[in-house]
Amino acid sequence: MISVHQAREIILKNILPLKKSELIKIESALGRVCALEVRSKENIPPFDNSAMDGFAIKARDSHKALRSNPKIFKVIEDVAAGYTAKKELKSGEAIRIMTGAPLPKGADSVVMVENTELRAKSSELRRIELVKIFEEVRKGENVRYAGEDVKKGETVISKGSILKSGHIGMLASLGFSQVKVFRKPQVAILATGDELVQIKEGLKPGKIRNSNSYSLYSQVLKVGALPILLGIARDNRKDLEAKITQGLSADMLIVSGGVSVGDYDFVKDVLKDLGTDMKFWRVAMKPGKPLAFGMMRRTPVFGLPGNPVSSMVAFEQFARPAVLKLSGARDLFRFRLPAIFTDDFEKKKGLRYFLRVILANKGGQLYASLTGPQGSGILKSMVLANGIAELPEDMEVIRRGETVEVTYLE
Amino acid sequence: MISVHQAREIILKNILPLKKSELIKIESALGRVCALEVRSKENIPPFDNSAMDGFAIKARDSHKALRSNPKIFKVIEDVAAGYTAKKELKSGEAIRIMTGAPLPKGADSVVMVENTELRAKSSELRRIELVKIFEEVRKGENVRYAGEDVKKGETVISKGSILKSGHIGMLASLGFSQVKVFRKPQVAILATGDELVQIKEGLKPGKIRNSNSYSLYSQVLKVGALPILLGIARDNRKDLEAKITQGLSADMLIVSGGVSVGDYDFVKDVLKDLGTDMKFWRVAMKPGKPLAFGMMRRTPVFGLPGNPVSSMVAFEQFARPAVLKLSGARDLFRFRLPAIFTDDFEKKKGLRYFLRVILANKGGQLYASLTGPQGSGILKSMVLANGIAELPEDMEVIRRGETVEVTYLE
Repeated sequence: MISVHQAREIILKNILPLKKSELIKIESALGRVCALEVRSKENIPPFDNSAMDGFAIKARDSHKALRSNPKIFKVIEDVAAGYTAKKELKSGEAIRIMTGAPLPKGADSVVMVENTELRAKSSELRRIELVKIFEEVRKGENVRYAGEDVKKGETVISKGSILKSGHIGMLASLGFSQVKVFRKPQVAILATGDELVQIKEGLKPGKIRNSNSYSLYSQVLKVGALPILLGIARDNRKDLEAKITQGLSADMLIVSGGVSVGDYDFVKDVLKDLGTDMKFWRVAMKPGKPLAFGMMRRTPVFGLPGNPVSSMVAFEQFARPAVLKLSGARDLFRFRLPAIFTDDFEKKKGLRYFLRVILANKGGQLYASLTGPQGSGILKSMVLANGIAELPEDMEVIRRGETVEVTYLE
Repeated sequence: MISVHQAREIILKNILPLKKSELIKIESALGRVCALEVRSKENIPPFDNSAMDGFAIKARDSHKALRSNPKIFKVIEDVAAGYTAKKELKSGEAIRIMTGAPLPKGADSVVMVENTELRAKSSELRRIELVKIFEEVRKGENVRYAGEDVKKGETVISKGSILKSGHIGMLASLGFSQVKVFRKPQVAILATGDELVQIKEGLKPGKIRNSNSYSLYSQVLKVGALPILLGIARDNRKDLEAKITQGLSADMLIVSGGVSVGDYDFVKDVLKDLGTDMKFWRVAMKPGKPLAFGMMRRTPVFGLPGNPVSSMVAFEQFARPAVLKLSGARDLFRFRLPAIFTDDFEKKKGLRYFLRVILANKGGQLYASLTGPQGSGILKSMVLANGIAELPEDMEVIRRGETVEVTYLE
């Protein structure tokens, strides 16, 4: 029996990114995997501009300015965002400027409007505007320089990034209305077992509803891939062969159920007979021990346990990073947090345990509390959880107050 | 100027959930807000069943069984998952059972197959199967009792829950192929400013591309609502009035830019003139200080600052919980984590700071490091961030090694 780490290594070693890409609008790009290195063709911002509403001046003219000792400037022009000053600013002059407007020629700093006072003075010929400046500014103060955000030629999004809101805004600001992303992998999902009935069928003695197909469907969606439901295969070779063959035309096949040691578990045999190169059958973990992985040429095949929780946990641990690798993503793993465990829990040595917990921040400290009974059939434990706590193989007991690593489930 | 907490309180007090619901397939329900209390109409599992592949027996028959002192049972039947035993088990008898199969009548426990050995014995008339049991089991061992996961009548999903994979699986297992969810709010997005050009337009002096509309579009999508792009309004009353009026037919309107003290910032005036009841104009925060909120009858209106980072941060802090409240969701806030700050940072007292950070788990400890310069025009700081660190109002400086609260951005 191999360890969780070994299993993950084998899986990720065997899976290669699909690499096929498509060009899509940035409005549709949230959560997609960027298929190229995005470099800026220009500076952002493209020009030096004002970070404030105020007055552009030469900084040295504000030397020793104070509210009690204001410096007086002649206002020679107004410039709004989107427009450029026509005049070049000289010593003793100020140009009224709005946030985002280009810094006028000759100016090197901006005094924010709150530290000024505008005064009109009538001369013989025309109205002259004057402004009192109440603070000394440094050269560059309240100025955003060209290229301060992004320099021309700079890489702003690396290949394999999962695009978030900030990336989408960045693409827009660089002039990209479309972006090249990797195609979403198609993941076929097959439930197996004579005990399963469809959601809307009546329950007869000994039967339960197929729920794994739907949790897996949502897990596949959540990780950004395209789930395909193949329905339920019965515990006989013919049905399994037909549906597994159908599933192997997808980019990945997930079979739930039928991989334990039970005499009716044909899945492994059928996979082998169809030519799947099976890499392992069992992983030293709980829940999820009967967990199979193989490659059918370039198509990864997962045999997940039939218990609802085992199926979801095994997806999280193995199929999720596998889907991300197929998708061309760079970061394959969820964020892990240290938290204080609030229960006592005994475990079997040699297995890695995945406990469903509720993470909570109490007074600035993170706590992880069991969702309740941890049986692998207790789907409620997944419904209530926002985290999976991992207890390492060599641990035998964890006590309340000890620290545990938790994968945060968004 | 009001505080971040006051602002959030005012916003959430004014916003009421939309409450309109729709019935959708569970395959489409991921991330949607559940519009009703889901109660189970039955026990899950519906019957006592075996948690293991093995042999169902009466526990007392295994008394003192050991590998060196096996107890021998007569195997009277085989029962696969999905089927029920026909015979009633008596003392000294065993029924071979697969994981998930109903516990046969008369049996009270299951011995896992690994602790047994099957033996065939030929008698005069027919082949009799015997099994050696090598361990003593307790009553109920390896049995999953009916209702262990969910009891009939139990609430499994509360109203206002955002549906995750576990919920979807739970709905399937309870026989729901559809679920009632709240309608997604429509959020109209309007960018304002004479300095803005469309993504594909050429940049002329003083102009920048409209990126805020697209970051906001993605942020709205991410929180599960329907964004509507209204384009760019120019800095004049007529254009603003027309586009704002259009936006007010949505469930929420977000205007970016045009709310600072600049003379060209008409947004506030236009909103007021159109009858919006403005609740506040400025919030004691950085970035994001010029931030307006009002109600146009039942429609919330946000005036977000025009700087790319300010716009995104202000959305996160105020518009996101507002959208969630409109959506009928129960939990309005993101998860917050304590982390060790790895920089020194000085701030102005009285303002709440929102710094873009990279959260990293190093050796079981969480660290938050600044993404780089924190200017409100530096969109790269959002691109690189996976968290927003909050420095409270009364803080003046934070030193490397001190703890900070971070909102984790998935």
